[in-house]
Amino acid sequence: MPLFDLPLEQLRDYTSSAVQPADLQPFWDRTIEEARQFSLDATFEPVDNYLAVIDTFDVTFSGFGGHRIKGWLHLPAHLQPGQRLPVVVEFIGYSGGRGLANQNTRWAQAGYAHFIMDSRGQGYGGVSGDTPDPHSSAGDVAYAGLMTRGIRHQDDYYFRRVYVDAFRAVEAAQSHPAVDPSKVVLTGISQGGGITVATAGLAAGRLDGVIAAMPDVPFLQDFPRAIDITPRGPYPEIASFLGRHRDRYEAMLAVLNYFDGVHLGRAATVPALFSAAQMDDICPPSTVFAGYNNYGLTGGTPEKDIEVYRFNNHEGGQEHHWIKQLQFLRKLLSS
Amino acid sequence: MPLFDLPLEQLRDYTSSAVQPADLQPFWDRTIEEARQFSLDATFEPVDNYLAVIDTFDVTFSGFGGHRIKGWLHLPAHLQPGQRLPVVVEFIGYSGGRGLANQNTRWAQAGYAHFIMDSRGQGYGGVSGDTPDPHSSAGDVAYAGLMTRGIRHQDDYYFRRVYVDAFRAVEAAQSHPAVDPSKVVLTGISQGGGITVATAGLAAGRLDGVIAAMPDVPFLQDFPRAIDITPRGPYPEIASFLGRHRDRYEAMLAVLNYFDGVHLGRAATVPALFSAAQMDDICPPSTVFAGYNNYGLTGGTPEKDIEVYRFNNHEGGQEHHWIKQLQFLRKLLSS
Amino acid sequence: MPLFDLPLEQLRDYTSSAVQPADLQPFWDRTIEEARQFSLDATFEPVDNYLAVIDTFDVTFSGFGGHRIKGWLHLPAHLQPGQRLPVVVEFIGYSGGRGLANQNTRWAQAGYAHFIMDSRGQGYGGVSGDTPDPHSSAGDVAYAGLMTRGIRHQDDYYFRRVYVDAFRAVEAAQSHPAVDPSKVVLTGISQGGGITVATAGLAAGRLDGVIAAMPDVPFLQDFPRAIDITPRGPYPEIASFLGRHRDRYEAMLAVLNYFDGVHLGRAATVPALFSAAQMDDICPPSTVFAGYNNYGLTGGTPEKDIEVYRFNNHEGGQEHHWIKQLQFLRKLLSS
Amino acid sequence: MPLFDLPLEQLRDYTSSAVQPADLQPFWDRTIEEARQFSLDATFEPVDNYLAVIDTFDVTFSGFGGHRIKGWLHLPAHLQPGQRLPVVVEFIGYSGGRGLANQNTRWAQAGYAHFIMDSRGQGYGGVSGDTPDPHSSAGDVAYAGLMTRGIRHQDDYYFRRVYVDAFRAVEAAQSHPAVDPSKVVLTGISQGGGITVATAGLAAGRLDGVIAAMPDVPFLQDFPRAIDITPRGPYPEIASFLGRHRDRYEAMLAVLNYFDGVHLGRAATVPALFSAAQMDDICPPSTVFAGYNNYGLTGGTPEKDIEVYRFNNHEGGQEHHWIKQLQFLRKLLSS
Amino acid sequence: MPLFDLPLEQLRDYTSSAVQPADLQPFWDRTIEEARQFSLDATFEPVDNYLAVIDTFDVTFSGFGGHRIKGWLHLPAHLQPGQRLPVVVEFIGYSGGRGLANQNTRWAQAGYAHFIMDSRGQGYGGVSGDTPDPHSSAGDVAYAGLMTRGIRHQDDYYFRRVYVDAFRAVEAAQSHPAVDPSKVVLTGISQGGGITVATAGLAAGRLDGVIAAMPDVPFLQDFPRAIDITPRGPYPEIASFLGRHRDRYEAMLAVLNYFDGVHLGRAATVPALFSAAQMDDICPPSTVFAGYNNYGLTGGTPEKDIEVYRFNNHEGGQEHHWIKQLQFLRKLLSS
Amino acid sequence: MPLFDLPLEQLRDYTSSAVQPADLQPFWDRTIEEARQFSLDATFEPVDNYLAVIDTFDVTFSGFGGHRIKGWLHLPAHLQPGQRLPVVVEFIGYSGGRGLANQNTRWAQAGYAHFIMDSRGQGYGGVSGDTPDPHSSAGDVAYAGLMTRGIRHQDDYYFRRVYVDAFRAVEAAQSHPAVDPSKVVLTGISQGGGITVATAGLAAGRLDGVIAAMPDVPFLQDFPRAIDITPRGPYPEIASFLGRHRDRYEAMLAVLNYFDGVHLGRAATVPALFSAAQMDDICPPSTVFAGYNNYGLTGGTPEKDIEVYRFNNHEGGQEHHWIKQLQFLRKLLSS
Repeated sequence: MPLFDLPLEQLRDYTSSAVQPADLQPFWDRTIEEARQFSLDATFEPVDNYLAVIDTFDVTFSGFGGHRIKGWLHLPAHLQPGQRLPVVVEFIGYSGGRGLANQNTRWAQAGYAHFIMDSRGQGYGGVSGDTPDPHSSAGDVAYAGLMTRGIRHQDDYYFRRVYVDAFRAVEAAQSHPAVDPSKVVLTGISQGGGITVATAGLAAGRLDGVIAAMPDVPFLQDFPRAIDITPRGPYPEIASFLGRHRDRYEAMLAVLNYFDGVHLGRAATVPALFSAAQMDDICPPSTVFAGYNNYGLTGGTPEKDIEVYRFNNHEGGQEHHWIKQLQFLRKLLSS
Repeated sequence: MPLFDLPLEQLRDYTSSAVQPADLQPFWDRTIEEARQFSLDATFEPVDNYLAVIDTFDVTFSGFGGHRIKGWLHLPAHLQPGQRLPVVVEFIGYSGGRGLANQNTRWAQAGYAHFIMDSRGQGYGGVSGDTPDPHSSAGDVAYAGLMTRGIRHQDDYYFRRVYVDAFRAVEAAQSHPAVDPSKVVLTGISQGGGITVATAGLAAGRLDGVIAAMPDVPFLQDFPRAIDITPRGPYPEIASFLGRHRDRYEAMLAVLNYFDGVHLGRAATVPALFSAAQMDDICPPSTVFAGYNNYGLTGGTPEKDIEVYRFNNHEGGQEHHWIKQLQFLRKLLSS
Repeated sequence: MPLFDLPLEQLRDYTSSAVQPADLQPFWDRTIEEARQFSLDATFEPVDNYLAVIDTFDVTFSGFGGHRIKGWLHLPAHLQPGQRLPVVVEFIGYSGGRGLANQNTRWAQAGYAHFIMDSRGQGYGGVSGDTPDPHSSAGDVAYAGLMTRGIRHQDDYYFRRVYVDAFRAVEAAQSHPAVDPSKVVLTGISQGGGITVATAGLAAGRLDGVIAAMPDVPFLQDFPRAIDITPRGPYPEIASFLGRHRDRYEAMLAVLNYFDGVHLGRAATVPALFSAAQMDDICPPSTVFAGYNNYGLTGGTPEKDIEVYRFNNHEGGQEHHWIKQLQFLRKLLSS
Repeated sequence: MPLFDLPLEQLRDYTSSAVQPADLQPFWDRTIEEARQFSLDATFEPVDNYLAVIDTFDVTFSGFGGHRIKGWLHLPAHLQPGQRLPVVVEFIGYSGGRGLANQNTRWAQAGYAHFIMDSRGQGYGGVSGDTPDPHSSAGDVAYAGLMTRGIRHQDDYYFRRVYVDAFRAVEAAQSHPAVDPSKVVLTGISQGGGITVATAGLAAGRLDGVIAAMPDVPFLQDFPRAIDITPRGPYPEIASFLGRHRDRYEAMLAVLNYFDGVHLGRAATVPALFSAAQMDDICPPSTVFAGYNNYGLTGGTPEKDIEVYRFNNHEGGQEHHWIKQLQFLRKLLSS
Repeated sequence: MPLFDLPLEQLRDYTSSAVQPADLQPFWDRTIEEARQFSLDATFEPVDNYLAVIDTFDVTFSGFGGHRIKGWLHLPAHLQPGQRLPVVVEFIGYSGGRGLANQNTRWAQAGYAHFIMDSRGQGYGGVSGDTPDPHSSAGDVAYAGLMTRGIRHQDDYYFRRVYVDAFRAVEAAQSHPAVDPSKVVLTGISQGGGITVATAGLAAGRLDGVIAAMPDVPFLQDFPRAIDITPRGPYPEIASFLGRHRDRYEAMLAVLNYFDGVHLGRAATVPALFSAAQMDDICPPSTVFAGYNNYGLTGGTPEKDIEVYRFNNHEGGQEHHWIKQLQFLRKLLSS
Repeated sequence: MPLFDLPLEQLRDYTSSAVQPADLQPFWDRTIEEARQFSLDATFEPVDNYLAVIDTFDVTFSGFGGHRIKGWLHLPAHLQPGQRLPVVVEFIGYSGGRGLANQNTRWAQAGYAHFIMDSRGQGYGGVSGDTPDPHSSAGDVAYAGLMTRGIRHQDDYYFRRVYVDAFRAVEAAQSHPAVDPSKVVLTGISQGGGITVATAGLAAGRLDGVIAAMPDVPFLQDFPRAIDITPRGPYPEIASFLGRHRDRYEAMLAVLNYFDGVHLGRAATVPALFSAAQMDDICPPSTVFAGYNNYGLTGGTPEKDIEVYRFNNHEGGQEHHWIKQLQFLRKLLSS
């Protein structure tokens, strides 16, 4: 895989041609408001995870439409009574779900509460999931996969429900007694990174306690460029659908604009650590930089940084980037 | 593509290891009965198809759950008052839909009424479609595509709804005044062929007027073998899902057995013309022969024949096979 | 497939670097004159096409060198005596032939006479054909396929014969009593589109009655760029041959210049409806725009338009573009 | 990926055609004896792993030839003085190394001491490594990768050194004060599984304390079949080398026979839990079953079991299989 | 590439299901007789080959239909007056031609006269060529490439002309004064090997002086099996054509039977050294063994041997096999 | 393969961004000096090559570290006593070795002494080899293949040893009594071309007798660009290693700079004939032009020329380019 996208110097300045909808804020105000009509009703059931040093809880809470969303909460074992930990809320990559109860505990190993949100209707791919997407639009004519599900209107688009689930997941995490609700960190890889950007933006002015965002090779950034140039992964679902439904390009872009991290992240107010991979042909670096360069612009320009992995495809920095994140959080929380 | 499946001599005798559920007939009796609770309410709106010699109607009728299903009815133009034509009911291949109003008129050109049923939730692929699948299970965790949608239980499995739609489509076609309801021919390619086999079987004893079935390289036959050996196309959706959900193999087979053409076609009572392609790695010839060899065995062993295309992949006989079908119908209707 | 060619803004202005031979017009004057030495001798034999609403005739006429070329003529059935219809003359895509007698009747369905010309020496690929290429140069050393057949000299190059066949096909179509010879429309997809452009140009001043050209994702445009950038389809036959015959690049370009739609279409005088697909890696959009932008420049700049399909590869607009063509002709013929 | 290897019924009985060298035991007796001439000199340096619940030590010990081999030892944090834990010794898959200090702690999370051995000369692929292979034969003419390194003679073959490293790794693990040396479990995936089988066999009669082996989709089993049928992964390195060095087939097989899990595992005396994946085209299921079916045959036929994953390629059972292993160990250690 | 064809034990016995035409001998008697009506008229023009130790002549002679066929004759430089050398006549692999004047001199280096025959109509691929195929059937509808050129009738099939060219090439080689006409060895790789087998068979009883045949991974053996199982190379041209021209399977086989090495080689009377590669997916080993096992059966069962390369694809034994051939000839000529 | 690199006009001016190390000359002075501490000890054993017109000697000499390096020397047979020939020293492409004794004699056929150097540790790929790389760093952690072997430090990097071997190979060739030591020509394809460039540069001021360099599509030029843009072949070994070892980019570049033909060739003083292929995606044309454009700039700007093959991938000009080289040498040696 050669370097195929813009050179690094141009990436540093690239900001996307996506157009923010005039009613972006009211749309999301209304959306969040509707979601909060439903009782959150977060429950935490202990499970046997076979682990000696981590306690795990099977989480259920009400997301978009009051639909019941699953998750895991991992805590270091043997917490002291009343002890409250900063929490890392993690969102999952495309096609995956929350996985098994002991599959991913890494933030809890590092001493954080670790909350993992299942992705509705996903979990058929890399990691299994348990949460259906019972919305009435789920059976719409759509290209195989989730990217064009409900794409006829922003009210029905699949990621509206997912972003709301994520917003509510933060509230669910905050509701647990071992969690310090004033110290929520958002993170995720690929789709999880895209949800991180969106949630950081949606939280601004609507939800207290989020203190940082760590989107890793984030997906869902700069749709207009992404669907033009991306050869592999989920973005081509949209291009393929448009290859068949040739008359819907502008209408689709209009819908996607409500969900583009380029717009949603602009409002974010918290420090962020991004990553991008220069040979990433699933989430091309220009789309990631579009999200990064816009992040926080209207949210007070919080500190932000981006790690660039020159010779990596979508795997990005992997274990090396986790070290960067651990250092970032260690510093953030000690300051 | 070399010949990779059983040699032709063995195909002639191969009958599948799929096990028919004990309650197959009651399950479908109940299913059809429930569907008939809903008024069929078939409507036929004339459309401008730009064609001089074919008249086209936009069809809507109530399928499974009373959901409104789309279709086209093409008729030769300038029919005489009261003239009633034999009707060819055509089902569509996987991922496709009914297409545009003038896209496929071939049976009407040949002098038949030509009824095309849209496939719910499809139409994102080769040919566009317009019918959603509004069932509450449509958003279940499922591998991208339709093959594992609702596969947790036979009541929810996607093809239960499609097969019922097809059954009702026959009734809808019969309801049009230019159609001779005693002369219904079923046909389709690939998934359309699988629906043809199933509908022929379901019609037996439940629906009068079906007189022939012409399944072309039919899909949805012999699931146990198909998911083991098929490298390409929709069958691997199931294998891929099982690669992730490792504990669900037997349970899935149990569900799929309610929808396997090997079982459903056994009850068929009408003459049939199948086709198979020996280099077909989407619907391998052994799965097609499994369906063919079982066809009609408990339905009075109607006449049946199968055209074998030795050097073709899933395209099968194409225009050449259409000639065979035209000859088959000409002979059938003149006898 | 990402957008890999020039951006749309640049496509709008791109005109090719191909150099028109000084003797282009005399070369073609001589060529056509020689062809007309042979009696056209167009014959039309009725065939059983199994269709109730279309009549089909097996056509034979004399093309280049007097070689007998096959074709089909489809007419709406039951024409009134003396009725004369506008005719759509269709040329076929690379590797295909005229197909079976009832395989493609769409313009006749729409009320036109529909004349399909077989492509000599082709018909081994997507659609079968019946016309050999008996020219003595047919067995020259050439890369597999037709693109380098006879490429040592413009007099022997394969497409010289094909373009002449196409010119004579128009005359053959005009000779049928049910055809209105003053209303000939040229069309075709890919290679058929390239032949359409060439024939429209060759007709200018040499043949009356052509009234429109509808080249769909045309091939055979802008050879110098096409052989440099095209990764797939027939153009690479030329590049592959040059990879072996390294010393023949300039000589080959000199020959190809006599057949480049960029030059031949420039003389066209009739309105045109082109199409291009922005993700087409068989006939890249820049080569199509080169043909489009030059079309008619010296022929009085007739009206022309081009439909651009952004998310399509070489399939282009398919059934959607046919609607555009039907509308274009309906308007043209009603004006 | 269809099922391409033997059907499951035949896998259950398949035992390989590989021929055990007459001097297999003396060869390994001498090999181990030589290795033990070098002082083990295992050192354990604590490292900052950023984790709150796991303590990690950077391990170094003397493997084959006294070469210094790296590893990690992970322990649950806050052990009580004198507490000794059963240890899981893990070997790594082909191309990988021990990774970063906090990359894989899963057995420590489960309450075990977790010892990870680096693979000499590997660590360029999936997971990074830090141990060179300083043997004088390392620069021999060999196909890219490690499979044919030193393959001219069994004394020089690369895996001789690796197997000895593994044997010594067990001794190194046993030497740590928090480890119960009488409770050593061997495990690993793919190459790690192959080393597990070999080490279990080599330990028999030579090393006390090993109580179980858990090889997961093991590599290095049944070389004669593996190099004939495997299309992907490291086995084809051998076939590719033989494609060039055509005269060395029998000589290579003779060397490989000293390292084939089919022979080495036969002597094992401890219970084992294997896994195989039926669509595995890197370590085909027949090769895995060859290893499994021979395991322990001359070692007193210890209890053994194998999990079969029907729809998985080389990923095998992944997180699901870990659960099986956790259950297997929980039961073993509680009995 | 795994071993995909029959195991070696079965290859040793495999003999093909191809059916020899009743009139095979008369067909070829007539064919050769007709060719000999044309004067051979072999000319040898010296060329500057830039080589100090090899002299090269540009050869032209009359092949099938009197068409002028090109070739090279290489001789060791500085022959003594009247010296006559055994000659190796080499035929070329599919798509290639005789190449440049100094491109392949290896048999002359070894002290033989080395005669290379150009393949009419080829030379567009691996090695360039200079001989057209001016037969009137060369422009027939045929799949791209040569395999289906003229395949409607045995009189027109392309390889009839090539085999005759080869027969005449032997006569041309024999006509040079530095060649010993009683010592002709035939050889070639792939297609060249197929021509070798055919020429050895055709020479029996018709042409004196041929003393050995060395077909290397020969093509053109056992067509019925070859077109069923071969995934790559020229055989699939036939299967692809049949995929389109579905009704011509038996007719094509009937034609191909006149050219199958399985039949033609049966009459051969001279010793032979074959080679086969067990991972060859262009000329699968079973087809090569079919040719080998039939070779000479009706020609007095001359000595024959076959080298088998287990881990090679179509490259076969390459430089290693040349050594075998040099040894074979050294022994043959010294005996 | 489309033209994917810079257009030809830009290639003519492109000079690379690689930075020459300040101590490049001292590094190589020291390196050569150390190598010359070892006695060259070149031996030439006659072998039976089965050839009548070429004599071949099995060569062994001391390369880097005194390691014994293999080679072949081919001479035209029957030289007169005392006759001394210009010698062509040939280096081999990546993965290959010196091959068999009669495999490549082409320069000897042309009347030159032909010296072929084996590449240490290679010979597993296209052509077999016999020389190990016994350096202690050969077993370092490195990506499969040779490109990252010893890359931690310029003293250990694999190509340091190879370049020294090449330098000593020239001296070995010069030591043979049939060689004119004042007429040494360097050549090679791909890696062989890269070694040619390096050796030409290293010879300047250190070794007399080299009179020309003929690097053909040379590898090992302009590492910074090569590892960024090359999709295929050996360069991606470096990118792949960096994809895993993310922190070593700058350090690696620093090492590679000691071996980049862009720097080493700058000092060359002898005429050169390069070649480049514009569709070469293994050694992209821009990297080749970087080497060419820098060649000789500080060595007195000797005459140089480059053949460009527009439609070729890495095969370049092959037999056609050999003619160019033969002409170049004929002219050079006659002047």
